[in-house]
This record gives sequence, structure tokens and C-alpha cells, in this order.
Amino acid sequence: MSDKTTMNWDRKICFRPIGFVQNDYDEPAGPLAMCGVTSRIILDDALVEGLYGLEIGQSIQVLFYFDRSPGDFDLHQHPCGDTNLPKKGVFALCTPHRPNGIGVTQVELLKIEGNVLTVLGLDALNNTPVLDIKPC
Amino acid sequence: MSDKTTMNWDRKICFRPIGFVQNDYDEPAGPLAMCGVTSRIILDDALVEGLYGLEIGQSIQVLFYFDRSPGDFDLHQHPCGDTNLPKKGVFALCTPHRPNGIGVTQVELLKIEGNVLTVLGLDALNNTPVLDIKPC
Repeated sequence: MSDKTTMNWDRKICFRPIGFVQNDYDEPAGPLAMCGVTSRIILDDALVEGLYGLEIGQSIQVLFYFDRSPGDFDLHQHPCGDTNLPKKGVFALCTPHRPNGIGVTQVELLKIEGNVLTVLGLDALNNTPVLDIKPC
Repeated sequence: MSDKTTMNWDRKICFRPIGFVQNDYDEPAGPLAMCGVTSRIILDDALVEGLYGLEIGQSIQVLFYFDRSPGDFDLHQHPCGDTNLPKKGVFALCTPHRPNGIGVTQVELLKIEGNVLTVLGLDALNNTPVLDIKPC
């Protein structure tokens, strides 16, 4: 078992984008509004071979960086920003305002053409950096 | 729609651990071997209020950093490292050897005591940095 001495809380863990989102949403539209949205993911050309084995129609997880969220956040927030709903802790919510701004969304893979994936249901804004793609 | 000029492929996106995994696994045991493993997540004391609203027994997603995986990876890999299985692209696999080493695992929340969460089914090694916790 580990103990406190092995936990480096100040460790910086850094990534680079593997791709970027393209869609018509430059401003937040609410999570439900984006369920039916088709987006494109422009993948780094050098990583295209990593798509081998993905099948059209399958569900995939897209991990992305909430680059439009400010660095500060509240530990208690209203779900979906709706002040009619009682506040919950940030780890009980999918809010983009969180300690590490990573989004995870399950989407349907509609098409792959070269380094461009077309997906349905990605609740990420235009130009959002993509961090990873995984099978569900 | 965005174009190439808005994609900064060299952008560094950095995070800090929100917690660390504690369990008896210091070496990889295979994904299936860890389905029944109970782990503890030691959360940053400053973030404990962020757990408010999580319920015992619920499924949560734990995002973590594959800190034991080397930086290099193959774009085509055997699933689960089993050479009897045909290779697939890294984005069609959950392999820890990937461009950005982020793991996402759905686990069952068994207990919360202060800043310590006990979870079932986390396939992360002892001392692994945790990046985020989300509801499923």
C-alpha cells in the first residue's frame, strides 16, 4: 500500500491534442441541445493508423479538454447550471467547471474519411482539443 | 467552422492529480484480473466537498493517468497484449500505451470516509494519479 510520501500532489501531468472538434457551436448550447449534433474530429495525420479496427455505427468515448471553461470553479454547483435544481458536488456532476477540465462523452461513429471522423452526440464546442478516443 | 489556423497541435494541456489510488497491485495483472479488486482513492483534502451528492452503490467514472506506461507506443497493438488476437489501432483499444495515457474506468462506489473513497473494479495500479471522478 502507498502512503502519503509517495503522493506528489504538485506533479504536472501534460498532454497534447490528438485532434480538434469542428461543428457549428462556438457557444455552450446545453448538454441536451447537443445530443443530436453532428461534429467532425480532425485527427492528427500522424495518428490515422490508430483508427484501424473502429467500425462505423459503433459507440466510442471521446475525451476532450474544456478549453473555454475558466480555471476557477465551485465545489458545489447547480446541475446543468439550473438554479431550480439543488446544488451537488463537482464530482457528482459532469459540469465543465471542475478541477481538471476533461470531458468524456459517448458518441456514435458515423464516418471515417482519412483523418476526419464524423460523430453524433458530441457535446463539445467548435475547436475543442481532443485528448483521446476509446471504444466503449 | 474552424480551419487549420485555429488548431494548435503543440499546445500543452496540463493537469494535477486530484487523488491517488491505493491497492495491492504494483504490477499489471490484466484488465479482467482487476474487475473484483477493491481500491481506495485518496482525494486531495481541499476537494472533499466536491463529493457531495455521490451515493454509495452508484457507478462512477474514474479518470486516471497511466503513469507506469512508457511514452512510446505502437499505433497497432494486440488487444490485452494477447499475440493470439489480431492487432487493432490504438483508438480501438483501451491499452495503456496510447498517445495521451488517460484511463477511464467505470467502478462501483462502496464507501466514502472523509477524503477516502473505496471503489470496486478499478483497473489502476497502486499509487496511480487520479485526474477526475464523474457520475456515469
